Amino acid sequence: MKAAYYLGNTTIRVAEAQARTPGPDEARIDVAYCGLCGTDLHIFSGHMDKRVSIPHIMGHEMSGVVAEVGTNVKNWRAGDRVVIRPLAPCGNCPACRAGHSHICQNLKFLGIDTPGAFQNSWTVPAHTLHRLGNEVGLDLAAMVEPLAVACHDIRLGQVKPDEYVVIIGGGPIGMLIALVAREAGARVLVSEVNPFRIEFARKLGIEAVNPSEIDLPAYVEKQSDGAGTDVVFEVSASAAGASVMTQLPRTRGRIIVVGIFSETPKVDLFRFFWRELKLRGARVYEPQDYEKAIKVASSGKLPLDRLITARYPLADFQKALEQMKSGSDVMKILINLEGD
Amino acid sequence: MKAAYYLGNTTIRVAEAQARTPGPDEARIDVAYCGLCGTDLHIFSGHMDKRVSIPHIMGHEMSGVVAEVGTNVKNWRAGDRVVIRPLAPCGNCPACRAGHSHICQNLKFLGIDTPGAFQNSWTVPAHTLHRLGNEVGLDLAAMVEPLAVACHDIRLGQVKPDEYVVIIGGGPIGMLIALVAREAGARVLVSEVNPFRIEFARKLGIEAVNPSEIDLPAYVEKQSDGAGTDVVFEVSASAAGASVMTQLPRTRGRIIVVGIFSETPKVDLFRFFWRELKLRGARVYEPQDYEKAIKVASSGKLPLDRLITARYPLADFQKALEQMKSGSDVMKILINLEGD
Repeated sequence: MKAAYYLGNTTIRVAEAQARTPGPDEARIDVAYCGLCGTDLHIFSGHMDKRVSIPHIMGHEMSGVVAEVGTNVKNWRAGDRVVIRPLAPCGNCPACRAGHSHICQNLKFLGIDTPGAFQNSWTVPAHTLHRLGNEVGLDLAAMVEPLAVACHDIRLGQVKPDEYVVIIGGGPIGMLIALVAREAGARVLVSEVNPFRIEFARKLGIEAVNPSEIDLPAYVEKQSDGAGTDVVFEVSASAAGASVMTQLPRTRGRIIVVGIFSETPKVDLFRFFWRELKLRGARVYEPQDYEKAIKVASSGKLPLDRLITARYPLADFQKALEQMKSGSDVMKILINLEGD
Repeated sequence: MKAAYYLGNTTIRVAEAQARTPGPDEARIDVAYCGLCGTDLHIFSGHMDKRVSIPHIMGHEMSGVVAEVGTNVKNWRAGDRVVIRPLAPCGNCPACRAGHSHICQNLKFLGIDTPGAFQNSWTVPAHTLHRLGNEVGLDLAAMVEPLAVACHDIRLGQVKPDEYVVIIGGGPIGMLIALVAREAGARVLVSEVNPFRIEFARKLGIEAVNPSEIDLPAYVEKQSDGAGTDVVFEVSASAAGASVMTQLPRTRGRIIVVGIFSETPKVDLFRFFWRELKLRGARVYEPQDYEKAIKVASSGKLPLDRLITARYPLADFQKALEQMKSGSDVMKILINLEGD
């Protein structure tokens, strides 16, 4: 089998590798598809060299089929179609004890803190497996991980039918939040500066505006008869997003911070006071978000296939990362790892 | 009767005034006591000259006795002991229609947008009255308004017994939040830089630390066995407070923004993501907070009398404001308006 190794400094080598025999509580998965995530791009760009062990195999947005299981694993067997929830919590920290093991204070993220899924066969803790039905293709199933992020965000945002939802940032996660919110019955607006992404949203029937071309708070106020939006998802992780997010919600409206801010932005805390706004951060997913995402993906109601803008074999992994890094005309890129 | 007029530029004149006969839906209150609020100090300092109508009578933290009522007013009569909830919402804006009339988008605040309580007799809409029992003195009843702020904050913060609560800022509101949180069974820590206020808190049996002398996040982490606090109240409206508030809570901990920020601070949105923190703004109070505050004040369980660090007659109003402005050794100053 083969694996794609990050060697540092935007360099990938695809080479022969040895599948690891599962330990007693592990399962070995023959990987079918794995999507490229923004985090993978960060690793590729060298931003996370202190965290990953070079040479590093990245990848966590995957689907596959169980190949073999360890001696303690009773609920899974070879041939089961699965996705992996790539979180390994410690089980002992205050977060784990409080029932927040998905944001464990010592969390290991599979594919970042451990070898990931850009290899034909991946050995993981069996507790990370979620079962797929036969309704969903393994290519679309590779969208379950980012879709679970969106399901988590929508759940924490308590989005209800007929609510007015604004998503700041129309990349893959923003687009999935928009689709899940629309499916939940919300009225959805995406704010995005990239013309490709604006057009992309519109082709999916999602209203999208460019906040550098219109006065977004004034537009939203008008569209909501002076009230403001019910929920804002900040997915851009930009200073502009952090600035405008407080100007959009109604009194006691909700802001969900999804974007991973690398710098500390200014935030209008007066507006929180004035309108009694609520904000909460949302990170990764919990098991029920994965189950929800599998259900949604299996229903066929969301145009997940249209979010996949390119598919490559593992041999073209470097090229795929470079395309993603260029940012042009990209939504979600999948790597096909079947049968290599 | 007399009234204290703000004439602009830190100048007060106490002069003869005419009591206003109540309209059909109004009541005239003989004012007993009125506390000085930070907002009054802002008005006195000229920061709100664009909002107030000079000459302006300020004051909203009051207690008194009904003197006469308008023809439509059936539930009140002369002699009733009352406090006023000084909010006049429009009833028609999106906030009012959503049930958030206390933060009405066209809210008039009595004593800021209308003449206030620093006069012997004050005529107000009858819907603003709350009844006092005989258990509470009219001096302590003047603390009901700021106490209702604290009750609102604690309610929105959902403070539960045995939770660990940190209050950033130990002025009158911070101190009242600390006392109400302690009464609710919480473990309380006040963070404050002013030595007088630190000592004040300690004399009330409240743990208080100076964040310029200790590493507050490290202290809180140690005190909570590595978890962090359950709730943080940001009452300082300072850049330092906005910076440290995100470093204290446990996973999914709550931050309540009470302070009125005049500048936009930097806020660590990454930390919101990382620990899935929750934040909400809290402004003024709703009717149930007033009823709760009256109940708490009447119970005698809180040392409200000890928060009153000075009492002056109306004739000394200018002096009282100047003492407050100096900031030295002041917690709550009351003006006695009885019998002038």
